[in-house]
Amino acid sequence: MTLRGEELKAFLEETHLCHWATVGPEGEPRVRPLWYLYAEKAFWFTTRMETRRTGADVAAGSPVAVSIASEERPYRAVILHGIPEVWSDDRDSWLQRIATRYGEGPGLRWLSRAVKEPDRVVLRMVPDKVITWNYGKGDGHREIPQGELP
Amino acid sequence: MTLRGEELKAFLEETHLCHWATVGPEGEPRVRPLWYLYAEKAFWFTTRMETRRTGADVAAGSPVAVSIASEERPYRAVILHGIPEVWSDDRDSWLQRIATRYGEGPGLRWLSRAVKEPDRVVLRMVPDKVITWNYGKGDGHREIPQGELP
Repeated sequence: MTLRGEELKAFLEETHLCHWATVGPEGEPRVRPLWYLYAEKAFWFTTRMETRRTGADVAAGSPVAVSIASEERPYRAVILHGIPEVWSDDRDSWLQRIATRYGEGPGLRWLSRAVKEPDRVVLRMVPDKVITWNYGKGDGHREIPQGELP
Repeated sequence: MTLRGEELKAFLEETHLCHWATVGPEGEPRVRPLWYLYAEKAFWFTTRMETRRTGADVAAGSPVAVSIASEERPYRAVILHGIPEVWSDDRDSWLQRIATRYGEGPGLRWLSRAVKEPDRVVLRMVPDKVITWNYGKGDGHREIPQGELP
């Protein structure tokens, strides 16, 4: 009834954007579209820790909720909850993998600017909780146990 | 440099999903994909106030942040902040407008079930703050004054 296994993996490999939600300093919700990459059973993102509010919220300790959905029927969706960590190993090659996933030419052009930004980071998140839907197979949603991440 | 006026209106009429972020009872971020409709200078949504967590958060007084983005280049995006109100006038015809915007047949099938759900509501939001991007025209984002909503 839900999105899991190879079907979940294939969905995550599609070039959807994710929508990245945090809680701001006054307890208010914040959300913005962001690139993501699913690799090595983790989710990888990039943002700026100071000049982007969503990055600043993470720096201040906000947990993160992430929503990824297909805009066409059959609707499929994945929601993640977790706490991302700043990932410094091979930062530039992770930036490149994230950016070029959405188109090689524009990704490389973006990369040439991004690597110069002093607060540019790669964030890695192994979610505490993953919920998936496949509306094409019924209304149900389901929590995917950690060990079942494809 | 940014998305405004007729271009903003045309973007909002595209059948994107929105991603609806609230703050939960423990101060945690929550987000999920949702339908929206932009009409009469307001944003219209539907959810369930009890059986959907995002609806329950609104019932508990959480403000809302909403993210809408194109998944194809040139990337365009709209972020809304505000407090939605439950809208009871002509509830069923608003439900129909929201649902059939995403396809008439499936929308009407959805509607026939939704009208029977006791906690099904229409939410109307005139945002306190609207931020738009048009990456195709540069990186800048801009706050759109209320009076400038198309």
